[in-house]
Amino acid sequence: MIVVLTGGTGGAKLIQGLTHEVDPAQLTIICNTADDFVLHGLHISPDLDTIMYHLAGLGDDAKGWGIRGDTYGALEQLERYGAESWFKLGDKDLATHIRRTELLRNGVSLSAVTHELCRALGIAARLLPMSDDRIETRVETGEGEISFQEYFVRRHWRPEVTGVTYAGVESCRAAPGVIEAIHAAALIVICPSNPVTSIGPILAVPGIRHALQKTAAQIIGVTPIIGPAAISGPAHKLMLAMGVEPSSLAVARGYADCLDGFVIDADDLSLKDAIESLGVNVIATSVRMNALSEKRRLAREVLALARQ
Amino acid sequence: MIVVLTGGTGGAKLIQGLTHEVDPAQLTIICNTADDFVLHGLHISPDLDTIMYHLAGLGDDAKGWGIRGDTYGALEQLERYGAESWFKLGDKDLATHIRRTELLRNGVSLSAVTHELCRALGIAARLLPMSDDRIETRVETGEGEISFQEYFVRRHWRPEVTGVTYAGVESCRAAPGVIEAIHAAALIVICPSNPVTSIGPILAVPGIRHALQKTAAQIIGVTPIIGPAAISGPAHKLMLAMGVEPSSLAVARGYADCLDGFVIDADDLSLKDAIESLGVNVIATSVRMNALSEKRRLAREVLALARQ
Repeated sequence: MIVVLTGGTGGAKLIQGLTHEVDPAQLTIICNTADDFVLHGLHISPDLDTIMYHLAGLGDDAKGWGIRGDTYGALEQLERYGAESWFKLGDKDLATHIRRTELLRNGVSLSAVTHELCRALGIAARLLPMSDDRIETRVETGEGEISFQEYFVRRHWRPEVTGVTYAGVESCRAAPGVIEAIHAAALIVICPSNPVTSIGPILAVPGIRHALQKTAAQIIGVTPIIGPAAISGPAHKLMLAMGVEPSSLAVARGYADCLDGFVIDADDLSLKDAIESLGVNVIATSVRMNALSEKRRLAREVLALARQ
Repeated sequence: MIVVLTGGTGGAKLIQGLTHEVDPAQLTIICNTADDFVLHGLHISPDLDTIMYHLAGLGDDAKGWGIRGDTYGALEQLERYGAESWFKLGDKDLATHIRRTELLRNGVSLSAVTHELCRALGIAARLLPMSDDRIETRVETGEGEISFQEYFVRRHWRPEVTGVTYAGVESCRAAPGVIEAIHAAALIVICPSNPVTSIGPILAVPGIRHALQKTAAQIIGVTPIIGPAAISGPAHKLMLAMGVEPSSLAVARGYADCLDGFVIDADDLSLKDAIESLGVNVIATSVRMNALSEKRRLAREVLALARQ
């Protein structure tokens, strides 16, 4: 059994590779939900949705989010009504939020909703939200505290960040099956997702980090950083805001208490020794994934590193 | 000032005619809301929407409901998720329900929501729900009690009806402006809408029927029945279920306590004397409206009858 910890975009790529290299039914994916937010009265789970759409073969590879070929009739009309339109909701995508919101309002848990949506889409892998409770990444900026989606999508990660907190995380519980999956796993993959706003919240859920330290599974991480910057998105800016000089070494240090192996980019070969001195096996390869062949190759390298 | 009492389809046609014959800003439209229902967790107001879309020039004349040229991506995806799909929600149409539901949940009244949506669509006429309170037409059938939309859309008005009730109507209040508009009107038009499930609920809202009896306005009705059957929809079946032999005469009798004039179809010329004996001026003309020219002609005939 393979457990995957992931956010949205970067993680979705590696997971796509993994589903081609192993039986998807062997995968349990633990997904960040601290970016979840409510818009138009609908509960949106951006990372769960991105992963779910990719697992269902519906993902939009070009955009990295949403459903391929989706239309935008509802958003256009919502805009006419004066509703906020900075978050680009496709029509089919909207159906996910409508269905989720209805089920949540009926008292169904987020993990049960996720299970139901994945079942309807014929997904063989097991997709778990990190928690059924509400945790919210709050980004402190010079212009005030905003949600991650406001920072990332609405403000195009332009405001200067002075801090990041996970509101509600202390009192939340890991979703059913999360801790058990970590203990039962043979391999755990930490995806090349934002260490501050994707992997960070997962590790902050009470019990998850401890389970990762105690599990017998091999734990392999993949860097989302090459040189001083993220492959995509604002991870490096957020690391700086947390007082950390962004690099693959810094990411590995953040996970070092759990990590057995780490995959860095060949451009960062000079960091190999420093990371290995943390007691971590390192391979340096290409961690950029565009074509499916690159996603599969990186997935194979992660699997090979775990077997070492 | 002209006040119009209406349901959806038939009323929308006459209102379209009226907006071409008088300044739309002179119109106050009081619309049935007893067909409102909740689907996918969204508050849907079928009659308000049909009228609003037509007033905004967005109405789908061919179908009689929804927005012209709408797409159905969300509905298709909702169906994949196992949600009910018998009510054909277009993507742009869905935006209306999403926006309305969000505002209602924030404590905004249905009449204020309606005002806001109409303003956003640049509608000059004033569209009022009959009430801000929840009233629900319940259709008693041999197979149990169902909502009007379940009877009309889901079951294609096939089940045998044994009764119709307006749940919640006794304790509801007319929406702000409704009673005032009836008193201030010079002309009140009762549209060719279903007398049992469209006009019936409006007249059952406490205070509305009394205001119609007391107003100085001319009140002109238009029949939705030709011969023994409705021009469209199940009005005749529902009249039978209420113990009334369906005809233009029966419709006029139902409104006789308020009515000054009534428009029937030329096919029903033989009923003219019987209706006039109720103390109502009658004209017999063609009440079928397909082309815009027919809608405008009928609107002109209503206005002329009021001037007699």
